[in-house]
Amino acid sequence: MGTVTEAEAMRRAIALAARGLGSTSPNPVVGCVVLDARGRTLGEGWHRRAGGPHAEVEALRDAAESGHDVRGATAVVTLEPCNHTGRTGPCAQALIDAGIGRVVYAVADPNPTATGGAATLAAAGVDTAGGLLADEAAAGNTAWLTAVLRRRPFVLWKYAATLDGRSAAADGTSRWITSAESRADVHRLRAEADAVVVGSGTLRADDPHLAVRGVDGASQPLRVVVDTHATIRPTARVLDAAAPTLVAVAEDADTRHLAGALTVRLPRAEAGLDIPALLAELYAREVRSVLLEGGATLAGAFLAAGVVDRVVGYLAPALLGAGPAVLGDAGIGTIARALRLDVTDVARLGPDLRITATPLVPPLVSVPATTPEGN
Amino acid sequence: MGTVTEAEAMRRAIALAARGLGSTSPNPVVGCVVLDARGRTLGEGWHRRAGGPHAEVEALRDAAESGHDVRGATAVVTLEPCNHTGRTGPCAQALIDAGIGRVVYAVADPNPTATGGAATLAAAGVDTAGGLLADEAAAGNTAWLTAVLRRRPFVLWKYAATLDGRSAAADGTSRWITSAESRADVHRLRAEADAVVVGSGTLRADDPHLAVRGVDGASQPLRVVVDTHATIRPTARVLDAAAPTLVAVAEDADTRHLAGALTVRLPRAEAGLDIPALLAELYAREVRSVLLEGGATLAGAFLAAGVVDRVVGYLAPALLGAGPAVLGDAGIGTIARALRLDVTDVARLGPDLRITATPLVPPLVSVPATTPEGN
Repeated sequence: MGTVTEAEAMRRAIALAARGLGSTSPNPVVGCVVLDARGRTLGEGWHRRAGGPHAEVEALRDAAESGHDVRGATAVVTLEPCNHTGRTGPCAQALIDAGIGRVVYAVADPNPTATGGAATLAAAGVDTAGGLLADEAAAGNTAWLTAVLRRRPFVLWKYAATLDGRSAAADGTSRWITSAESRADVHRLRAEADAVVVGSGTLRADDPHLAVRGVDGASQPLRVVVDTHATIRPTARVLDAAAPTLVAVAEDADTRHLAGALTVRLPRAEAGLDIPALLAELYAREVRSVLLEGGATLAGAFLAAGVVDRVVGYLAPALLGAGPAVLGDAGIGTIARALRLDVTDVARLGPDLRITATPLVPPLVSVPATTPEGN
Repeated sequence: MGTVTEAEAMRRAIALAARGLGSTSPNPVVGCVVLDARGRTLGEGWHRRAGGPHAEVEALRDAAESGHDVRGATAVVTLEPCNHTGRTGPCAQALIDAGIGRVVYAVADPNPTATGGAATLAAAGVDTAGGLLADEAAAGNTAWLTAVLRRRPFVLWKYAATLDGRSAAADGTSRWITSAESRADVHRLRAEADAVVVGSGTLRADDPHLAVRGVDGASQPLRVVVDTHATIRPTARVLDAAAPTLVAVAEDADTRHLAGALTVRLPRAEAGLDIPALLAELYAREVRSVLLEGGATLAGAFLAAGVVDRVVGYLAPALLGAGPAVLGDAGIGTIARALRLDVTDVARLGPDLRITATPLVPPLVSVPATTPEGN
């Protein structure tokens, strides 16, 4: 099992891992703390960006730079050390080479190309234990774990509405329904996502920019416009140079006016484009998390396809009594078929409420079989 | 000023007062605690129902039954003792007759027919102080204070909706959007209200009963149906004998099929009935608080008339994507004219959220001019 000191180190490693949210895809976020036999921290690190050093290597380097000897030390890491050589070498081997005596990890690596690190460590005589704070660590890696297990990006649908569920007034005005605090929080969600997706209706109504503003060191997500009929104007703000943009259109759409834009052709669904095909395309482009920003029609299509993993609603304490509803047809005709969710968090953001909820479907994130604590 | 002991007694008096919610109209709720010179409680009481003894008289009786001598004692009371003889005698005189030496009250009586109690007490040589915990005591009496100052009932609009603001699914089904916990809470709101109001659309869609169930010792509120064209069927559940029912119709409505029902004829507004006329009629019938239960059209009319004092929304963590919106036209066409509110409470009720909010209008409840604490 993990000791109390190791559990404290794991919490620190989980916090370190979170610093990588939004810049590590297609890799997970990972944090690592190296402890000596008395539980003192010798080094720590986290995976900062895809292609950069993994957390374990960062922590070993941090220890070495501080002049610490890590032979016999314990590495506490949020994810099972990888076993494969990708853009960087396998972490399991790096830990063995450094003389690490014990490895405690939280979540087993479900990625078939990377798994096996624990077995490699154990075969090399390293004391290895998995499962410490697995749920907490998995929660910090939900997007990546969901993506790996589903073979599609994790999808977070974000909406902003009045108490009566309107996303705009009767005349179409919507600036601003929610507070500055809520809008800043949306930029944080964008910064944590690999891609931001909107439909053509939102594009026409709001001409959104979709880039991240006001978040220090943020990576810009891929901006994705779902535009079946290629109605986007070449002057749309979303097509500027602030971040890359992908325009998803139907196979038969006329895109001659979009010569300079990155486009992808997708099969049509009953209404609009085929959502699973869109997500497969994004997954192939190494997108592991999607922030779906609207509008109502596209959100309905995503929900009907069963691919929304989390819902974050910014609810302004306001009433309109008229205007477009925040959610369009999701193929639900009667109350017994309502999409039920579990509210996981409620927060006050200025005058607004932020409600985080998860659709009630079987849990995806597995805890590793090795849980030495016996729970 | 009030001593610490008196403040504690005032909190107790405020809690006692709340026991009367729903059964004291047209009177306020009031609580009273009688303390001896050492701060020990000699007696306590609250106003239980209109026509019954006032809180001060109850507390004096309680003290006498316990064999306590209240001469020179302090009466701590949530509202300025009344000065007039209604169905019961004036409390100020009762306190003087009992030999009470000091009276500490929270909120001054704004009712022109009852005010002046503090002056009467002071003239009789009783040490008198007002303003202790005035805000807390006023919050407990918001409905009555609002009604007295506005000369119309306090109106609480209650709605139940999905996260996307729907009150029913596309096929009209709505049982149940919210949880059993939320529905039980609605019965508490009904029990605290003098009248429950619904429109004819809700009547046709749901055939609601509107009586209080599951609340011990609850008074049944007056059930009010706003039914411009007198479309209610004589077999409607709301017309049964469980509680009195008033059917409000237009002056020219044909009510021949409603021979057995209590009806009132009101002027028409642009759409439906004149809401201020309805509230004036209810006020004249001694209704001081109204629970507006819907539906969307009637709620829109109340909001457009500016007569909603509090909003309580039961939000189910569910999405529908289609179906009727919880709020209809309230005369708001653009975002700048959205009705803004202040969220005063958020609670979890089973899986649901209960959001309590107050429209952002100038505060009505005044603190008495006499605040000897100097704040």
